[in-house]
Amino acid sequence: MSFVIMTRPDRAAVWKRVITAGLPEETVEIWPDVADPEAVEFLAAWTMPDDLITLYPNLKVLFSVGAGVDQLDLSRVPAGVQVVRMIEPGLTEGMVSYARYAVTTIHRGMLRYIAQQRTATWKAWPYPPASEVTVGVMGLGELGLPVAQDLLGAGYACRGWARSRREVDGIETFAGEGELDAFLSETTILICLLPLTPATAGILSASLFDRLPDGAGLVHCGRGGQLVTADLIAALDRGRIGAAVIDVTEPEPLPPESALWSHPNVLITPHIASMTQAETSARSLVDNIARYRSGRAMRGAIDLTVGY
Amino acid sequence: MSFVIMTRPDRAAVWKRVITAGLPEETVEIWPDVADPEAVEFLAAWTMPDDLITLYPNLKVLFSVGAGVDQLDLSRVPAGVQVVRMIEPGLTEGMVSYARYAVTTIHRGMLRYIAQQRTATWKAWPYPPASEVTVGVMGLGELGLPVAQDLLGAGYACRGWARSRREVDGIETFAGEGELDAFLSETTILICLLPLTPATAGILSASLFDRLPDGAGLVHCGRGGQLVTADLIAALDRGRIGAAVIDVTEPEPLPPESALWSHPNVLITPHIASMTQAETSARSLVDNIARYRSGRAMRGAIDLTVGY
Repeated sequence: MSFVIMTRPDRAAVWKRVITAGLPEETVEIWPDVADPEAVEFLAAWTMPDDLITLYPNLKVLFSVGAGVDQLDLSRVPAGVQVVRMIEPGLTEGMVSYARYAVTTIHRGMLRYIAQQRTATWKAWPYPPASEVTVGVMGLGELGLPVAQDLLGAGYACRGWARSRREVDGIETFAGEGELDAFLSETTILICLLPLTPATAGILSASLFDRLPDGAGLVHCGRGGQLVTADLIAALDRGRIGAAVIDVTEPEPLPPESALWSHPNVLITPHIASMTQAETSARSLVDNIARYRSGRAMRGAIDLTVGY
Repeated sequence: MSFVIMTRPDRAAVWKRVITAGLPEETVEIWPDVADPEAVEFLAAWTMPDDLITLYPNLKVLFSVGAGVDQLDLSRVPAGVQVVRMIEPGLTEGMVSYARYAVTTIHRGMLRYIAQQRTATWKAWPYPPASEVTVGVMGLGELGLPVAQDLLGAGYACRGWARSRREVDGIETFAGEGELDAFLSETTILICLLPLTPATAGILSASLFDRLPDGAGLVHCGRGGQLVTADLIAALDRGRIGAAVIDVTEPEPLPPESALWSHPNVLITPHIASMTQAETSARSLVDNIARYRSGRAMRGAIDLTVGY
């Protein structure tokens, strides 16, 4: 029985140490040093080897290193193998801090000050109190919900949208396609934290931008495949979108010729909104293996019918 | 009996409306339209007219429009006139949001991403969890304390330093010159939110920077007169200070020839960390006038012996 780790060496070393300490009865191996492929029950990886099925015929659980599983071709996962996404406090903390930074960037007009610095220009601009800014979070899951709650705590008016109904104290929630118009109509800063599924691919398009108030801000830290880049550039150029903070693109890296790079009202970051932190994620893996061994549901287990 | 408002027209209009509504018995006038100078009991202003004494001989209270009173020459304030700085939730909210943004800028290395964007470079950099970053806040007053508490809530290790002992849950506190070394020695991001007094002028100097861990970050949103700019530039150049976010300078505006403007590890903002918000500050003024009329202490009354 073995747990195989396939991730960058620094993180792999921490995982091996923490998992071995927490679950001494488990064998932990760092790929590619796997003694017996038939003994492999658990695999933690970002992308799935093409020959997964034949490589580890007794695999029980595939753990994604990241918050999503859209990088995996779920159709290739053998029946009986559970897929589990990463839920760990370090990943949540990183996303909350990034989203707060991005919302402040838009609310306080920080890109203007960054541009002014290049010309040694000292000019202040007024800003509204947070209570007059309505932040709308798309996706109210393991990341979206704490992001919305942090922004609520910072004084913003908060609303959230998800596929199915969620009730959250202090946050006005909207559900499904039928309530998307109402959600968007008063959202002055939109944050996308949706999982990438066939239903959300291309959702950040001209037709969505047109339903936001004029000059709304966009923070995109979902997945690149949700954004129609050409539509965003057009919306920025005509002022429909006032400013955008973009962490994920399709493809990644964002090609050097993309007009997003040089747009004055855009901040691009290279998919760094949040990163799986070695120590805290190792403890989450320990918890999930213990859950699996005792027959309990693992946190982050994927429903293959919806893809998240 | 009259309350005279001397501030920019949009804020003055809101103040007049809110104060008149809250205290119908008070006469509120917007400078320079003052019917009877001898009737003026209250003046709200940023800087003090040179002829304050002869202009309003019966003045009782001088309200500063901002969080500080260092812009006023307190030695010219007639005996019997109370000076009151601005304490209002909008000012606090703005400072908390700015400090969080600045700390995130340093913690997550955002200036590097902003620079990379100019060359269309997509490269991610790792970052530590917030618990491994120690933020030290100098000044634990009306702004410093909520800033420290917000950062504590974001997961940072927090410590605070003030002239006199403060006890704050979850925050390691240090007091006075005698504990400054100990405070600085483990502070990886330093935030200055001290009032400007003779004791704090020039405090952000080479000798202070040398007591921080190598590569520490600096967030300065106190007052420009606290920073020895040449010392900061030297500390940045030799890596003693890794990055700085500077909102206040001496003089302001920061002269175009200052090396701070173009330093790659510096973000300059034009004294916008926080601004007095019209509606919320008007309600604070109403509260303070009511306190004055009923003989209670006003919030933010200045102790002229220490200057804050």
